[in-house]
Amino acid sequence: MRGAVLCAPRDIRFVEREDPKIIEPTDAIIRISATCVCGSDLWDYRGINPITEPKPMGHEYCGIVEEVGSRVRSIKTGQFVIGSFFASDNTCPICRHGYPSSCVHKEFVGGAQAPVLRVPLADGTLVATPEVPTADLLGSLLALSDVMGTGWFAADAANVQPGGTVVVVGDGAVGLLGVLSAKQMGAERIIAMSSHEPRQKLAREFGATDIVSERGDEGVARVKELTHGIGADSVLECVGTQDSMMQAIHSTRPGGSVGYVGVPHGVELNGPELFYAHVHLHGGPAPVRRFLPKLIDLVCNRKINPGKVFDLTLPLEQVAEGYRAMDERRSIKAFLTL
Amino acid sequence: MRGAVLCAPRDIRFVEREDPKIIEPTDAIIRISATCVCGSDLWDYRGINPITEPKPMGHEYCGIVEEVGSRVRSIKTGQFVIGSFFASDNTCPICRHGYPSSCVHKEFVGGAQAPVLRVPLADGTLVATPEVPTADLLGSLLALSDVMGTGWFAADAANVQPGGTVVVVGDGAVGLLGVLSAKQMGAERIIAMSSHEPRQKLAREFGATDIVSERGDEGVARVKELTHGIGADSVLECVGTQDSMMQAIHSTRPGGSVGYVGVPHGVELNGPELFYAHVHLHGGPAPVRRFLPKLIDLVCNRKINPGKVFDLTLPLEQVAEGYRAMDERRSIKAFLTL
Repeated sequence: MRGAVLCAPRDIRFVEREDPKIIEPTDAIIRISATCVCGSDLWDYRGINPITEPKPMGHEYCGIVEEVGSRVRSIKTGQFVIGSFFASDNTCPICRHGYPSSCVHKEFVGGAQAPVLRVPLADGTLVATPEVPTADLLGSLLALSDVMGTGWFAADAANVQPGGTVVVVGDGAVGLLGVLSAKQMGAERIIAMSSHEPRQKLAREFGATDIVSERGDEGVARVKELTHGIGADSVLECVGTQDSMMQAIHSTRPGGSVGYVGVPHGVELNGPELFYAHVHLHGGPAPVRRFLPKLIDLVCNRKINPGKVFDLTLPLEQVAEGYRAMDERRSIKAFLTL
Repeated sequence: MRGAVLCAPRDIRFVEREDPKIIEPTDAIIRISATCVCGSDLWDYRGINPITEPKPMGHEYCGIVEEVGSRVRSIKTGQFVIGSFFASDNTCPICRHGYPSSCVHKEFVGGAQAPVLRVPLADGTLVATPEVPTADLLGSLLALSDVMGTGWFAADAANVQPGGTVVVVGDGAVGLLGVLSAKQMGAERIIAMSSHEPRQKLAREFGATDIVSERGDEGVARVKELTHGIGADSVLECVGTQDSMMQAIHSTRPGGSVGYVGVPHGVELNGPELFYAHVHLHGGPAPVRRFLPKLIDLVCNRKINPGKVFDLTLPLEQVAEGYRAMDERRSIKAFLTL
């Protein structure tokens, strides 16, 4: 089969790769129905994470089960399934506490920008939809594999409450779906920080009540103006830089919560500053598996439409153009068809 | 009057100071019934916080109200009261959210190692006991002014739950009262990290089920052994150094919570390390005022006896010996009588 491989910074190739096959008896092989490019793929693409050897790319996937290993019990061939970028057993103590992305047997699922994918720990990792979905649901279901689950975790980690005031730092797909998540959780006021008009529009569509286009200290000052001078109850950090993290912490009221899901690059937190900020801080790799049953239900019942973040559709073989468009911020998120 | 003044590192003098008087109409003047030396006073005493001018010391207090300003409504002369080291209005939005130690009008209450003290924002800051307490309750009531409220906040911030597993990093008075707090909150297993025999004994008396005397990576390894390899649900950080903070974070299971109350000195948190640790982090200056009514009730009904942390009693004029004894770890905490 042919799939996406990153060979050097900004050098994505759609080339021949080995066909995935069952290795462990707990594996499943799925035929990908749709995949996409993640904001976090851009850390590799831009060379910020060093590339030492050609790397099969992609970790967001949904599709039809083609084959299962001899010890797979609940997942069946022919099912339409969605899984997270971290395979998890869903039975260990950490999974039972709701953190499958730190499962004691976790394994990164890579190489999903391809027609076929091996998924380890299939019973723990994959969740099947009630039936094979119609094509119009495909984008929203694919989004649950990472970007929507991550936005949801940001809101969950930021302890969004009905009636609460929320700030979202970052107007990428995760941030936008953080807005949607906060709205679903009943937030009354949702302040999206974005200076990019099409993203502001989508943020409003997802439930943002206010837009702040200023950044840094000016952005924080604007948030304070909108929140009686004290800051927001819940702030979602969806970028991963020092500036965005500090913007998030400073936008939170004392006693409020920061949920951070942007993979940190160059972030250092000063102890005394954090101490006197008095915020709750929680984040990390989103435990997407925990949220999949609920989010599948919301999508299948057409309560949410996270697939709207896909503003560019390309056939898989043009995956390189998807990276380029996202890198240049011409696209929020690229959907890849098979 | 005469009170404690820090003139230079390790130079505490009991010298003449101006008599406190009402300055703002919201002030109260209280006659101190008992005061004490705080672990955080040692940061000044040891010269770790620079001393630029003679500093009146002490911020833990309880006593009888002698005089109130013209705008004080609820606090009356003759009442026995306890207050926090941060005066707070108890009405601003931040106070209403439970964070009086970040009150928009907060003011540090210093100079309490003296016979008389001015307390700003008396109505918001002070809580009166139902009646003037008997002498045997004095130590436990004084402890509520900071050390017990801080230990309680550490447990609250670490989300201690009935049946949960708790680690306490730090065997100072705050850590020991963190053990007592976790026990009150229903923790099933409480692991106190201490290598000092008398403190281990008091930790056990307060409810510790296990003692870990190793520190750093060895201490973390021992905690993992005791917690099915995954770490504790809740960890209380009661020191404030880089080592103690990392020991706390690494002792917590993914999805668990660190409550940190040790005033950070030289602490820097690495973003990626914190991200992948997957912990909840909350702390800061303890919102003692929030807990005072409940804790006064527990002490007056003799359900808890936090005054047991006082293992040295001295007349106020011998305050310098109290600092020396704590600095040399001959004493856990020095009680000063008047």
